Amino acid sequence: VKRAVILSVGDELVLGQTVDTNSAWLSQQLAALGLDIAGHMTVGDDQNAIAGAITQVAQEVDLLLISGGIGPTEDDLTRQALAQAMGVELRPDEACLSEIRAYFSRINRPMPVRNEVQALVPAGATHIPNSCGTAPGLAGQIGGCRIFVMPGVPKEMFAMWRLSVAAQVEDMGGGSVILSRTLHTFGMGESAVAERLGTLMDRSRNPSVGTTVAAGVVSLRLNARAGARSLAEIELQATDNACRAALGDLIYGSDAETLPKVVHRQLLTSGLTVATAESCTAGLLGAALTDQPGASAYFQQGYTTYSNAAKVKVLGVPESMIAALGAVSEPVAVAMAEGAAQASGASMALSITGIAGPDGGSAQKPVGTVCMALAAGRSKTFSRTFHFPGDRDMVRDRSVKMALTLIRFQLLGRPLPF
Amino acid sequence: VKRAVILSVGDELVLGQTVDTNSAWLSQQLAALGLDIAGHMTVGDDQNAIAGAITQVAQEVDLLLISGGIGPTEDDLTRQALAQAMGVELRPDEACLSEIRAYFSRINRPMPVRNEVQALVPAGATHIPNSCGTAPGLAGQIGGCRIFVMPGVPKEMFAMWRLSVAAQVEDMGGGSVILSRTLHTFGMGESAVAERLGTLMDRSRNPSVGTTVAAGVVSLRLNARAGARSLAEIELQATDNACRAALGDLIYGSDAETLPKVVHRQLLTSGLTVATAESCTAGLLGAALTDQPGASAYFQQGYTTYSNAAKVKVLGVPESMIAALGAVSEPVAVAMAEGAAQASGASMALSITGIAGPDGGSAQKPVGTVCMALAAGRSKTFSRTFHFPGDRDMVRDRSVKMALTLIRFQLLGRPLPF
Repeated sequence: VKRAVILSVGDELVLGQTVDTNSAWLSQQLAALGLDIAGHMTVGDDQNAIAGAITQVAQEVDLLLISGGIGPTEDDLTRQALAQAMGVELRPDEACLSEIRAYFSRINRPMPVRNEVQALVPAGATHIPNSCGTAPGLAGQIGGCRIFVMPGVPKEMFAMWRLSVAAQVEDMGGGSVILSRTLHTFGMGESAVAERLGTLMDRSRNPSVGTTVAAGVVSLRLNARAGARSLAEIELQATDNACRAALGDLIYGSDAETLPKVVHRQLLTSGLTVATAESCTAGLLGAALTDQPGASAYFQQGYTTYSNAAKVKVLGVPESMIAALGAVSEPVAVAMAEGAAQASGASMALSITGIAGPDGGSAQKPVGTVCMALAAGRSKTFSRTFHFPGDRDMVRDRSVKMALTLIRFQLLGRPLPF
Repeated sequence: VKRAVILSVGDELVLGQTVDTNSAWLSQQLAALGLDIAGHMTVGDDQNAIAGAITQVAQEVDLLLISGGIGPTEDDLTRQALAQAMGVELRPDEACLSEIRAYFSRINRPMPVRNEVQALVPAGATHIPNSCGTAPGLAGQIGGCRIFVMPGVPKEMFAMWRLSVAAQVEDMGGGSVILSRTLHTFGMGESAVAERLGTLMDRSRNPSVGTTVAAGVVSLRLNARAGARSLAEIELQATDNACRAALGDLIYGSDAETLPKVVHRQLLTSGLTVATAESCTAGLLGAALTDQPGASAYFQQGYTTYSNAAKVKVLGVPESMIAALGAVSEPVAVAMAEGAAQASGASMALSITGIAGPDGGSAQKPVGTVCMALAAGRSKTFSRTFHFPGDRDMVRDRSVKMALTLIRFQLLGRPLPF
């Protein structure tokens, strides 16, 4: 398998003023072609640093994609650095210059003299037309390493990749393809998920299965490498099935599916309606339930009862219950959910009452303690106490995700698997 | 000047499935300390690749910051790679293990055996406590290069930097300093803001002023470069003052200040209370108003009336008014706000009713049409219709920001400046 490195150039990147999104985008393109990405590098607008990175990488891999540093200004030095690393001179390229001139005449402006520098090409390299800007790209080679230089402006880079570079590197994939899929779970920790997956996570396995965590969602990343796309697809699906066999309903969706999207679909199908009674989340659950268009089919109203007085007045929670047990208790959660179900007439009502912090915690009920209840028709109201880690934002976010998970399992007709 | 490199570790990064934001964030921190950032590198979850990168970088620079690869699973290999590069063994660290155990007992879960691996520390290195996750960081050294390993999860990495690493590398700064500040505005477009700033935005100016837009917030980025920190601070403050002179109250805060934080502070100071009546935002405004701890001083309850029936029943909006004018109209917004003020007894009530889309728009009221009203005591209820661009998420987000802006100017006692 051919190996590639992606190099980004720009002071704004090394100073952290701009987040580099080009490298991730190019990685996806290369992975889809079946190349192995050895890594990314970023250096500033410094000719020696750029040339040094090119020289080093060219010894190690088969393909180097560079973005940035080919504009018309003095701090654009990738062109010079490539010539330096190739050990050649920069020469004016007539075809290239006329393309730049044509660009300016298209946008009805005189070409500044400064842009002439963009028509300089290292001897032995060739220029790549830029369909939406002035900066032509460059294609060169050092030893066995092919090098392509593209603009740093994402839009121009995407266009140059699609119109020129992709076709030139396609044959480097050697038919080997990497397909990826991500499966999402919520409610169980990363290590517990990994334990259930067992040998599926073996480092040497293909397709490989790795776990990542983002905002409490534990995701399985499946990467299938195969000689042909069709084979990779079959293997990916087999591993997907194996992960689902190991984790069951804990997996709520794949790739771009989110808990709000999945629960939205379930609610639409069910024909049921849902109301909310929120304390510490103060509306976030209502917002999540209406995240998708068409939510009015199942969501009519929500009650945000942040104070104890509001819980009593709006939802009919007994004042004495709050006094005896505290607002963060399962009986209060049950009373909130049942009060919301009754007041709204919805088929289900979900309540959340908890301590989001940083203040308000105690030894018995530390910050992160959150009680929820789900009232649904005549069946006994379900309630449960959770302990979420992290700060205020995290506790509120995990509470909403857990509430959606409770609704999800209620609609699946199954008990919580944790 | 001491030089630093930032290394990110993770297959999801080299495959382009996740965009690396950690490196940019860490770069900003290092630049503010006056360190020179030689570059960024990214490698996958491959022990030899990580160890190779560490070995190479350690020969070239004075500081190496690493994020990622210290989770509990088999694909987390930065710990092993650091030991390999240092040429030492991994040893169990008792203090570290008990911190991990303490974390699990805080969140009321048994510690999986798998997490024990996180208490392994290369001989000669030390562990760094993690305040919001299980993965301890590592501090080591190879020759003259100091090495810090932090978690890949941004939130955990930020916390570890702030609580531990920053103080340990502070003394390495000292050259030319770049200080940055960001001033935030909401409600006016980027070009209108730029026009007001005039020559402050000249490219050659130092400190420089540039504008960026993120989620509707138009921010001014001020960069001051100077030989000494004290000088950079003075120059930065002078430019800050000049920007405020040009834009006045349109600037709501700087750097990490958000609209919810600023309005929270205002509300606490005012001693007033606020209630919400939300339709299309379905709780997002209530969530924003309770984003900060201590919100119970001014927020007791909110009404999410998503359906017309709920607006009538819960807030007393006349059914005939909705029939005649539509739910998205200023009179309905006024009735919602006045209904919420009356039902809650709060000093102020803010209502939002709009068309978040993608469906429900018409020629008269296209998607993005949002009516808001602010009822405050005996004064006439203020109302206004806004037209927000973008998709459902954007319309809901901008609605909340505008609602906070209405509250902000109400508390400032000034009319909206746009």
